[in-house]
Amino acid sequence: MKPLKAKTIYIIVLLLCTLHAGAQTLAWYDPVKAPQSCINGRGWDSELQGTYTRLPNRMQKNMPEKVWKLSQNAAGLTIRFTTNSRTLQFKYTVVNAPQLPNMSRLNQAGIDLYATNNNGHTHWIGNHMQWNWGPDTISFAFRELETGEGTYELYLPPYSTLTSLKVGVEKEATFNFCPVRTDNPIVIYGSSIIQGASPSRPGLMWTNILQRQTGYNIVNMGFSGSCLMEPELFKALSEIDAKLFIIDPIPNSYRLTDEEIIKRITQGVHQLRRKSNAPILLSESYPQPDITFNPHAEDRMRSANKALRAAYESLLKAGVKGIYYQNSQEIEFTEDAMIEASHPNDIGNMAYAKAYEKKLKEILH
Amino acid sequence: MKPLKAKTIYIIVLLLCTLHAGAQTLAWYDPVKAPQSCINGRGWDSELQGTYTRLPNRMQKNMPEKVWKLSQNAAGLTIRFTTNSRTLQFKYTVVNAPQLPNMSRLNQAGIDLYATNNNGHTHWIGNHMQWNWGPDTISFAFRELETGEGTYELYLPPYSTLTSLKVGVEKEATFNFCPVRTDNPIVIYGSSIIQGASPSRPGLMWTNILQRQTGYNIVNMGFSGSCLMEPELFKALSEIDAKLFIIDPIPNSYRLTDEEIIKRITQGVHQLRRKSNAPILLSESYPQPDITFNPHAEDRMRSANKALRAAYESLLKAGVKGIYYQNSQEIEFTEDAMIEASHPNDIGNMAYAKAYEKKLKEILH
Repeated sequence: MKPLKAKTIYIIVLLLCTLHAGAQTLAWYDPVKAPQSCINGRGWDSELQGTYTRLPNRMQKNMPEKVWKLSQNAAGLTIRFTTNSRTLQFKYTVVNAPQLPNMSRLNQAGIDLYATNNNGHTHWIGNHMQWNWGPDTISFAFRELETGEGTYELYLPPYSTLTSLKVGVEKEATFNFCPVRTDNPIVIYGSSIIQGASPSRPGLMWTNILQRQTGYNIVNMGFSGSCLMEPELFKALSEIDAKLFIIDPIPNSYRLTDEEIIKRITQGVHQLRRKSNAPILLSESYPQPDITFNPHAEDRMRSANKALRAAYESLLKAGVKGIYYQNSQEIEFTEDAMIEASHPNDIGNMAYAKAYEKKLKEILH
Repeated sequence: MKPLKAKTIYIIVLLLCTLHAGAQTLAWYDPVKAPQSCINGRGWDSELQGTYTRLPNRMQKNMPEKVWKLSQNAAGLTIRFTTNSRTLQFKYTVVNAPQLPNMSRLNQAGIDLYATNNNGHTHWIGNHMQWNWGPDTISFAFRELETGEGTYELYLPPYSTLTSLKVGVEKEATFNFCPVRTDNPIVIYGSSIIQGASPSRPGLMWTNILQRQTGYNIVNMGFSGSCLMEPELFKALSEIDAKLFIIDPIPNSYRLTDEEIIKRITQGVHQLRRKSNAPILLSESYPQPDITFNPHAEDRMRSANKALRAAYESLLKAGVKGIYYQNSQEIEFTEDAMIEASHPNDIGNMAYAKAYEKKLKEILH
C-alpha cells in the first residue's frame, strides 16, 4: 500500500468534516410516525398505517400469492411535505431483490422528487447522482434548493418493498407532512405496465405522469405479470370508493383463453357494480411497435383484445351503465416507445399518459 | 424436495427437445472470422480486427488509463448482415461488470436489432424478452420474422466489453455479413452521453438514432466520465479521415478550470486542423432541466460552456476555418428529458439526436 499524499489526506479529512457537519445539522422525519396519515396512493390507507404496502393484511389469505407479494412494493405511493429547507435528504431501506434487466435501478429502487412553489408551479428536481446505493439502505441528497416554502412530492420506488424511510431537512427549517389525500381516486388495475415498467425513473411512470397532469388522486393496482382478473381482485377493488376504475388487464391476461377473459372481466365488472356506480374504463393492450417485421409476436395479445371488446359489447347490451373502452390504437406508440417490445420506456410511458388523460377528460368532463 | 408432477416433467421434456431442436437447426456465424471486415463504427478498423474495441493497441501506452479501459467497450459498434432466416439468435460473452444504477442492463449489456427490407424500409425489431442473462454469456432469440431477405443491423452494448459474438440463423438460410462501411465518418468525441447513457436500449442512444436518421457512418468516441480533451485524444482523433468532427466535452471537462478548457480545446482544434479540413462542431452541454428549483446545481457547467464559447470565438478570430458551434439551448430538453439530471433518458436522447441532425444539415447541406 502506497502512503497517502498530503493532498489526499486533506481531502479525506475535509470530506469527513463535511459529512459529519451535514449529519449534525439535519432533523429527520419519519412518515409512518407523522401525526396524520401521509402516504398517498392507497385504497386502504387506515388499514395500512405503519407500512409502505398496498393491500391490507386481511386480504393475504385469499389473494393469489404473486399478487400479494407484489402488493408489498411501493408502486405509485407518494409522500408530500412542506419545508423551507434548502437541503433535503432521503434515507430508506428496501428488501434486497435482484435487479431486473429491463429497468434501471433508479426506477426499480430509487425515489423521484417534484415540488410546487407558492405560485403553484410544479417542477422536477433531479438528484444529480447525489446518491448512495447499498443493497438494503439507499440515500439521496438534494442541496441549495430554491423552492421557497415549497410543497414537495416524493415518488416511491415502484418495484421495491420499503421497510423504512426518513426525510432529513435542516434543523432550523420548517417541516410538515401533508395529510393523505382523501378525494376519491382513479383506481388503475393492471400489469407491470401499471406497476411501473419501464420508464427511467419513478416520476415518469405513466400513472404518475397522469397524476401530475390531471391532479387526480391515483391508486396504483399494478401487479407485474399477475394481472389475471381473479374474483378476489375485483372484490378488493370494489371496496374502494373510486372516482373511476381503469381495468388494463390484457398484457398479462392474454395468457388466459378468450372464454376465460370474457368470463373474468364480465364477472369483475358486475362485482364492481354491486358496490359502485363509478365509471369503468376497460383498455386493450398497447399497439405492437415492431409489428412490421415481427408480425406474429403478439397475435395472441390481439386476439385477447378482441375478447375484451366482445365482453365490453355484451356488458353494454346487458344494460350495464358507465362502461367505457380504450382501443389499442388510442395509445399512440412510435417505434421508439418500448424497451424490449413488452414494456413502454420513457417515450411509451408519455404516450400511455397522454391516451389516458384524453380518455379521462372525455369521461369525467 | 417435492416429487415433480407429471405435467411439470412433460413441460420440461418438451422444452429440452425444443431447445435441442433449435440448436441443431441453426448455423452460427462469427463476425471476427468473416471473410471481410464487418464491424462498423470504428476509426481504426484494420488495426482492430478480431476485437470489439475502439482504439488500437499502440495507443494504450500514451492514452489516459480510464479512456483506454472505456475504449474496450463496444459503444456505437454495429454489425450488418443479410439473411432470409426467419429465426435469429445472438450469443455473446462480455467481461462481467457491476450494473450501473442509472441505466437498464438491456442498455449496458444488451443488443438491439433493426432491419431494412428490399423496399428500403427500416424498422425496429424488439426482443420481446426472449433473452438469457448470464453474468458473462448473454443470448437473444428472434423468431417468425417477416423481413424477407432483409439487411439487419445489430447494435452492440455501449457499456460492455465484448469477448465473443455469434449470430445464429436457420441452417438452410442465406447469410452474409455486410462489408464494413468505408465512407468517411462523423466522429463524435465526448462523455458518457456520447458513449450511451442512458436510453432504455442501445438503438436509442442518440448517436445511433442520428446514424439511422441521417444515414451517416458514425464513430463513437464517447468515454464515460473521461472526456477531458487531453492532447493524446486529439492526436488519436486527427488520424481519422472524418467527414466531420463533433466535440462535446463539457459534461466532463467542466471539472477543468476555464483556462484549461480554453487551452485544451484550442490546442485540440489546431491538432485536428494539422491533418484535416473537415468541419469541426463544438457543442456546449445540455440545458439543465431542473433549473427552476435547483438553480445552482450546474453553475460550474454553465461557466464551462462560456469558456468553450470564448475558445470558439478566439479560434474564429485567429482565422481557423470550418469551426461550428452548438449552444446549450439548441438541445431542446423538456423537464422529462433526463434520468437523474446528469444523463439524457429516451426522451433526452431523442432531443440530442434532433439537435445534432439539424446542425449537421446546416453544415453539410
